[in-house]
Amino acid sequence: MDIYETKSIIKVLGNSKEILDDVVVTEYPLTIYLNKNEFVTILCTPKSLKELTIGFLIGEGIIENLSDISNIDLHLDRNISCVTLSDNINIENTLSKKDIRTTGCGRGSTFNLSINELSKHKLELSDDLVIKTSDIISNMNTFVKKSDLFRLTGGVHSVMLSDNNKELFFEDDIGRHNAVDKIIGNALIQKISLNSNILFTSGRISSEIIMKIAKAGLPVIISKSAPTSVAIELAEHLNITLIGFARGKRMNIYTHPQRVLVE
Amino acid sequence: MDIYETKSIIKVLGNSKEILDDVVVTEYPLTIYLNKNEFVTILCTPKSLKELTIGFLIGEGIIENLSDISNIDLHLDRNISCVTLSDNINIENTLSKKDIRTTGCGRGSTFNLSINELSKHKLELSDDLVIKTSDIISNMNTFVKKSDLFRLTGGVHSVMLSDNNKELFFEDDIGRHNAVDKIIGNALIQKISLNSNILFTSGRISSEIIMKIAKAGLPVIISKSAPTSVAIELAEHLNITLIGFARGKRMNIYTHPQRVLVE
Repeated sequence: MDIYETKSIIKVLGNSKEILDDVVVTEYPLTIYLNKNEFVTILCTPKSLKELTIGFLIGEGIIENLSDISNIDLHLDRNISCVTLSDNINIENTLSKKDIRTTGCGRGSTFNLSINELSKHKLELSDDLVIKTSDIISNMNTFVKKSDLFRLTGGVHSVMLSDNNKELFFEDDIGRHNAVDKIIGNALIQKISLNSNILFTSGRISSEIIMKIAKAGLPVIISKSAPTSVAIELAEHLNITLIGFARGKRMNIYTHPQRVLVE
Repeated sequence: MDIYETKSIIKVLGNSKEILDDVVVTEYPLTIYLNKNEFVTILCTPKSLKELTIGFLIGEGIIENLSDISNIDLHLDRNISCVTLSDNINIENTLSKKDIRTTGCGRGSTFNLSINELSKHKLELSDDLVIKTSDIISNMNTFVKKSDLFRLTGGVHSVMLSDNNKELFFEDDIGRHNAVDKIIGNALIQKISLNSNILFTSGRISSEIIMKIAKAGLPVIISKSAPTSVAIELAEHLNITLIGFARGKRMNIYTHPQRVLVE
């Protein structure tokens, strides 16, 4: 399955035009089945789809770790990802969940949660994580140049997981939520604990992105773009360090600056 | 309800920092009820919410025009929009629809549709609409500078409806799909026929955006950003002119160039 396709287009510059072949990002519908019940169709970039399936189910609160899944079968030609859940997962609760349309391709559950439930996802503030702004600037600089698919098509968001020194994984996708799900799924498969790692993203940060990373245990998110009001309030409550507008030598620290050393 | 809020942040530039108040875009959850049944929660910018409700229901295929709604009550303090559908609308069909997570905040129904159903939304190619590239360049130039909320917060997408000469309406929202829904809802309320108008958008164009504008009867969409493969295929099939990467004097015409005069 190709992640980009060639299309014939007319390129216009001022009053001149030219017919040529150009590259566009592939959009691929992936339907996830849970124990043979159709659950959801995600429009995505056809890459890292097992990671996407796992990360999505974590973000939705369907599973909490990899042992909650007994099997995943991907059938790329039929656009389906068939998940068999472990016996301890109650599929009835799952399938009756309320539908929340978020600002991106994922269903946030933020507004379903009581303060008690929300507090279940609160991260520890006792971590010893200290991130230097000089490292953020240099990592962000590497990150924004990294997506070949963006350079080719201009149609994807990127996400990178870093351990504060080096890149662990990088993903891109037509949906900014999908890219986050792929990173979280990948970390689970590779048994990498997320609680001292940092997520870099090109996309805007709304409440459901914060809920996704809280459920995954990720304490720091750094974006090139803007956060929303509720994202900031949730990050504050859940002990997540939220940094936005990280561009060149600038950045805005919105919450929990104690993890950031300005130097 | 304010569309932006003030937050205290730490602004970093190189190795210096400053605590100051900054403005962030408000995220607001709006739950739509259909005949007293909870239908969906949309995360959005709290402006033009009646328009959003109507445009969303059009895009979902729940209603086809304003007469399919007998009443809408907005309760901003309770975050709800209560819609009473006309007697001719079958609510049972509606509430059992398949869930598709799209790349933005809207549920596309593209992949639920057979070719027959899809063809129902095919636009007429016999329209006499001719758009000059010089007008596109000048309208796009006005459009990209227009959002005060983007200038303040950096956190919204914008959409503008134009009749090929002048702007009809402008909307912005944290979700690019919501902004399109608001424009379509507004046109319905104001009884403006969309079949010779043009939509300008700052956001990427994926399949569900094309389905939304096809259902609304809009023949032309012009974006600053990239389209996906499926968006191009749908636009081709549905007789929609799709233009992307409209920046400065450049643009790419992906489908149905017969409506565009390069000059």
